[in-house]
Order: sequence, then structure tokens, then C-alpha cells
Amino acid sequence: MTEPRTPDHAIDPLFIERHSPRAFTGEAVPEAELMRMIEAARWSPSGYNSQPWRFLYALRGDAHWQTFFDLLVPGNQKWVADTGAILFLVSNARMRVGDELKPSYSHSFDTGAASLAFQLQAVRQGWHAHGMTGFDHARAPEVLRLPEHHRIEAAFAVGRKMATADLTEEQRPREAPNGRRPITDFVIAGAFPADAG
Amino acid sequence: MTEPRTPDHAIDPLFIERHSPRAFTGEAVPEAELMRMIEAARWSPSGYNSQPWRFLYALRGDAHWQTFFDLLVPGNQKWVADTGAILFLVSNARMRVGDELKPSYSHSFDTGAASLAFQLQAVRQGWHAHGMTGFDHARAPEVLRLPEHHRIEAAFAVGRKMATADLTEEQRPREAPNGRRPITDFVIAGAFPADAG
Repeated sequence: MTEPRTPDHAIDPLFIERHSPRAFTGEAVPEAELMRMIEAARWSPSGYNSQPWRFLYALRGDAHWQTFFDLLVPGNQKWVADTGAILFLVSNARMRVGDELKPSYSHSFDTGAASLAFQLQAVRQGWHAHGMTGFDHARAPEVLRLPEHHRIEAAFAVGRKMATADLTEEQRPREAPNGRRPITDFVIAGAFPADAG
Repeated sequence: MTEPRTPDHAIDPLFIERHSPRAFTGEAVPEAELMRMIEAARWSPSGYNSQPWRFLYALRGDAHWQTFFDLLVPGNQKWVADTGAILFLVSNARMRVGDELKPSYSHSFDTGAASLAFQLQAVRQGWHAHGMTGFDHARAPEVLRLPEHHRIEAAFAVGRKMATADLTEEQRPREAPNGRRPITDFVIAGAFPADAG
């Protein structure tokens, strides 16, 4: 197998540098650093510029940390314990059109776009973000007081990635960034072929 | 009002440079250029690395162009006529877990993330992408032969942005990149406040 992170076409290295580590140093994320990451998300595109994304955050050791941490599934808690911020990304499924609130077709998609800006800017600042859908989907809406017509899209943890030299033998293989299918697997000229599924 | 594209926190200028023009030069997008943009999308994160995104494309003047163009609403056709590629971004709402296909919680969100990588890499290459949900939602699934359990997330047009000096008086105000709400409008420490809506 080839090195899993070699692009087949020339791209900005930032897209390859972004990955989702599980070994973090325990360093706290300063609030001002987190706000820069969210600022990048702010400039993302959205249907009718509706900006449906909401960022709920807890910083390591603050009044919200334990509440957010307790919503994650145990498998994620193991590594999130060493991160410096936990976020829940939420989308508003309705948008204002004139004086009316109408369903948004793209609220999840738009919030996903914002999440990538957030993650790329984190890398630019020397941090790494790791997204999760492994949280308590039954309890989270109540605990986060999710308003009607909103959807919790994902949780994210942000922290300082452990240097490769500091990884244990056990951690090392798990921390190797994962690969991707080649684009020929998901790019189609024209419509789907008749047998696609 | 302040200049609409001044960030409140220091971020990579790429996030500000990306915007959604409507004035394009008519230049065709070479296929190899488009594949680089899609390569950037390839490296995006997705739930369980399921990579749910699909990119359907038509290049200006090829056998698919008119089919794709005809699916757009007239308001979008007006400016897409001067772009060099039209894409439909589709997500697979199911993912493989072992031998089973299970519903994906984050297929739209993940595809949104991939779409931002695509758009940012386009800017890096000197092109601009503009997303749309204004397409014929009734006809598109049939025309694109959308497989079951898939969702059309958005259409995109990519092209060479017209230089500001070449814009007509009428185009100029419309081409000024739009602003955003400040992050204080959508960032919350902890859970939603009790009166959020």
C-alpha cells in the first residue's frame, strides 16, 4: 500500500495536514485561539447567506467542560480527556426569508462547510480538531437545550496533537492519518450510470 | 457599515478570498484543473471515514453541459452561462459498516465539508466556485439518475471571475462580496440559553 496521505493531484498541503488525531497533550485551548478558528467558519458560504451554524463550546476546566464531556460516548471520552476544548456544532433548519421563517434545504451541508473552515484554521494555528458523531443522541438535545428546528450535527474536540516521537508503541499505528479512496471512485462525468447504487 | 470582508480575528486570508461571484469571463475549466479541486475535497473528514460525497460534473461545451445547465433555475442560468464547469454534489445517505449498509447521520454535513475544500482549492488555483440550491428539485433526481438513498446537496458552478475593472456599473455593487454576522451572534459558551429559538 502506498503512503496513505499522498495526493494524486497537486493541492494545498493544508488539506493533507488536517487529520483527526487521538493522541493529545492535555494542553488547554485559550479562548482567543478558539475564536480565531470560529472566525474562519464565519466566512463560509451558506444557502441565501443564512449562516445556519451555531458553535457551542466548553474549554478544558471551565464550568461547561464536564457537561459536554459527559455527552460523549466512552470510546471518544478516552481521547477527548486530553484535548483542550469540546464543541457541539448545531444547525438551524429554518432560515429567514423576508418576514418568514422557511425550511432550509442546506442547513446541514452549510454547517459542514463551516466545520471544515474551523478545522483548517485550527491546523494553521498549530492545533488539531477531531469530529465525532459518537455522542449521546438521546440526552444531548435536552442537556444542550436544543431549540426547536435545530439539529446537532457533530461534536468536535480541539487540542494540541502529541508529537510522533512522544507516542507509545501502542499509539503509533493508530495515529497514522488514514487514507482515502481515489477521486475516480466518486467523480462522474454527467449523470450517475444506470447501475449506480 | 464597515467593509464587509474584514475579519474580527486573525485568520488565513484564503477564507476571505473565497466568495461567490456572479460575473465570470466565460473561460472553460480544464478537466485537470477541476480534478485538483476535487482532490482537495477527497481529504475531508467524514463520519467513520465513509466519504459519502459524489461529484457529478459537466465541462463547458461537453456532452453533459446542456443537461446540467437546464436543471438550474433561470436566475442562476443567467450567470452560470459564463462559467466553465457545472457540478452536482450528491451524498450517499448510507454507509458500509462491516457487511451492512447503515444510515449515515452526517452524510450531508460531511459533503458540505468536502464542498468547502473544493471551493478553497479552486481559489488557490485562481478560479471561483459558487454554490446553489436553486435547481429543479423535481426533475434533477431523474435526469441525474440519482440512486436510492442518495441526496442532491447542491449545485456548483466554477469559472474565472471577472476582474473588477471589467465590471459594468450595474454589475459592480452586485459583485461586492457579502458580509457575515459577527461570531458573537452564533457562538455560545455551554448550552443554548433558555430563550433561544
